[in-house]
Amino acid sequence: MSVYAIGIDVGGTNTKFGIVDANGHILEQDRTLTNEHENVQEFIDTLHDKLAPMIERAGGPGQFRGIGIGAPNGNYYTGNIEHAANLKWKGIIPLAHMVSEKFGIKVKVTNDANAAAVGEMMYGCAKGMKHFITITLGTGVGSGIVVDGKILLGHDGFAGELGHTIIRHGGRLHKGTGSRGCLESYASATGVRETALELLASKPDVPSLLRDYSINDLTSQSVFECAIKGDVIANEIFEYTGQILGEALANFIMFSSPEAIILFGGLTKAGDLIMNPTRQAMEDNLLQVFRNKVKLMFSELREADAAILGASALVWE
Amino acid sequence: MSVYAIGIDVGGTNTKFGIVDANGHILEQDRTLTNEHENVQEFIDTLHDKLAPMIERAGGPGQFRGIGIGAPNGNYYTGNIEHAANLKWKGIIPLAHMVSEKFGIKVKVTNDANAAAVGEMMYGCAKGMKHFITITLGTGVGSGIVVDGKILLGHDGFAGELGHTIIRHGGRLHKGTGSRGCLESYASATGVRETALELLASKPDVPSLLRDYSINDLTSQSVFECAIKGDVIANEIFEYTGQILGEALANFIMFSSPEAIILFGGLTKAGDLIMNPTRQAMEDNLLQVFRNKVKLMFSELREADAAILGASALVWE
Repeated sequence: MSVYAIGIDVGGTNTKFGIVDANGHILEQDRTLTNEHENVQEFIDTLHDKLAPMIERAGGPGQFRGIGIGAPNGNYYTGNIEHAANLKWKGIIPLAHMVSEKFGIKVKVTNDANAAAVGEMMYGCAKGMKHFITITLGTGVGSGIVVDGKILLGHDGFAGELGHTIIRHGGRLHKGTGSRGCLESYASATGVRETALELLASKPDVPSLLRDYSINDLTSQSVFECAIKGDVIANEIFEYTGQILGEALANFIMFSSPEAIILFGGLTKAGDLIMNPTRQAMEDNLLQVFRNKVKLMFSELREADAAILGASALVWE
Repeated sequence: MSVYAIGIDVGGTNTKFGIVDANGHILEQDRTLTNEHENVQEFIDTLHDKLAPMIERAGGPGQFRGIGIGAPNGNYYTGNIEHAANLKWKGIIPLAHMVSEKFGIKVKVTNDANAAAVGEMMYGCAKGMKHFITITLGTGVGSGIVVDGKILLGHDGFAGELGHTIIRHGGRLHKGTGSRGCLESYASATGVRETALELLASKPDVPSLLRDYSINDLTSQSVFECAIKGDVIANEIFEYTGQILGEALANFIMFSSPEAIILFGGLTKAGDLIMNPTRQAMEDNLLQVFRNKVKLMFSELREADAAILGASALVWE
C-alpha cells in the first residue's frame, strides 16, 4: 500500500520539496534554487538526485502514491506550467509529464496558491470546510478558492486569480501586467512598500521612523517594525492596505459565500495591524445577509512547511 | 413515470407559473400579482386554484416530478425566502414546505437569478457548459454562477450576489443597501436612468433628445430609443454603463474562469450599444491568460418564458 506523497513547491526563487505521510508529517525536506537551472530537464534531474535517496529511505517508489507540484501558472487540467512570468523557462512546459517520466511516479500539478488551499483543507484551519478562500499575501497576492470541497479550477484551470481583480478603478499601475488598481498592487509586500513611499512623499511634515531607512531598504517588514513602535505613518499604511484588502474580500464573499477566508504569507506577520482594518472594511462592504458570519483568520500552518504540505496534498485528493 | 414539472417565478410585481415538459416546452402558463396577496398562505391558495386545473389536464399530480420555484432571496438549502426586500411578506418564509403541503408535490426553491442560470444550462445557450455566469440586467442586477455544472450556492446558499460587488470605490449610493459604488447602481435599468440624469445635468450645453422626456418618464428604454437615433448623450450613457459592466465581468472571470458570460434582461435590448463597450472593457481588464477566450453573449431565451423554464428546470437537476 502506498503511504507517502512527495510535495514539490516551485517558487520564483526557491523550490522546496519533501516526503510527506498522509497525516501531514514531513519526513525529510530539502530545497534548490529554481532559476539556477537553465532548462527544465536539468532542474528535474537535480530534484531527482536529491529526492532519490529520500525515496529509498522511505521504502522505495512502491511506497509512494504520487507527486504533487505547486508551481506558478501550473495547470491542473494539463499538468503544464503555462507562461509563468517569474520563471526562466518560457512558454508551455509539460512538467507533470516530464517529472513522471523521470520518477516513474504519478504526478499532479496545480498553481502554488491552489496548492496552499489544498494544504489548508487537509492539514490547516480549513479542515472539514467545504467552502473557503485562501489569500496569500506575499511578494504578490495569490488565491485558492474551494467550492464544495474542491479547488475551483474553472473552464480552463486558471480560476482564482483574485490578486488581479480590479479594486481601484484607474488606480496604481501593476508593472507586471499593465493593469491599474488591482488588489496585488496594494495588498502585497510590494504594494505595502509602494504605499509607504507614496505616503512619505505626500506627508513630508509628518515625522516617521520610516525616514531612517534608505529607499532601497524600506520593505513591508520595516513598515511592520515601525508600526509596532507606534509610528503614525506606518500604522496608516496598514490601515490603508487593510481597507483595500477588506473591500476586495467583501466582493469575493458576495461571489462564492465561503465559510471562511484564510490569510497566509508574509504580510500576516503584522497580526492585528492588518487584521483589524481588513475585517472592518470587509464587514462594512458586505450585503446584510453575509455580515458577521464569514470567519476571517490567519493560516496556522508554518510557512516553511505549508508549501510542501499543500503540494503533497494534491496526491491524496 | 413523472414527465412534467411546474415552474413558478416569484417576482416583485408578477408571479408567473406554468407546466413544463422535460424538453422545455411550456404546455400552459398564467400569472398573478405577487403583492396583491397580504399573506403567503393566500398567495399559495391562489397559485393552487390556478394550477390545479392545469395539473388535471396534464394527467394529475402523478405525472409531476416536482415544483421548482425561483424567488427573491430564495434559499436552495432551506427552501425558505429569507428577508426579501421587494416582497410584502417579511422575515423567513418556509415557502418550499408550505407549497409542498398544499400541492402534495416535491418542491425546490432557489433565488430567481440562479433559476435563470439553470434555465440557460438546460434550455438556453449554456447547454453543455460546465462553467458559466448569467447576469440579469433588469430593474436590479442579478447573477447565477455555475461551477462544474452546478449552481454555486456557497456555504449558506447565498452565493452569487454579483450585483452588490463594489466596482467604484466611494461611488454612487445604492438606496436599498446603503453601499456605495456597487455594480447594480450602474448596470441596472435604474442605474442607466441615474446615469442619464447625471450626464444631462453635467452637460447642460450638449443638445439631447432625452431632454424632451419628462424626468418621470425617462427610463433606460428612452435612452435606448434616443441612442439608436444617434443622440450623443444617450450613446455616452451606454458607453459608460458598458465600461463599468465590462470591468466587473473581468473581475468575475478572474474569480471562476467561466467558458461564457450570458447577459439577460431588459438592458440587453440595447444590443451592440451595450455589448460593444462591455466587451471592450472586459477584455481590457483581463489578465493575459483569460483574454479572447470567454464568450460574452445575450441569452436566447424569450424573457416571458425564461423565468418559468428556469424555475421548472430545478426539478430535473
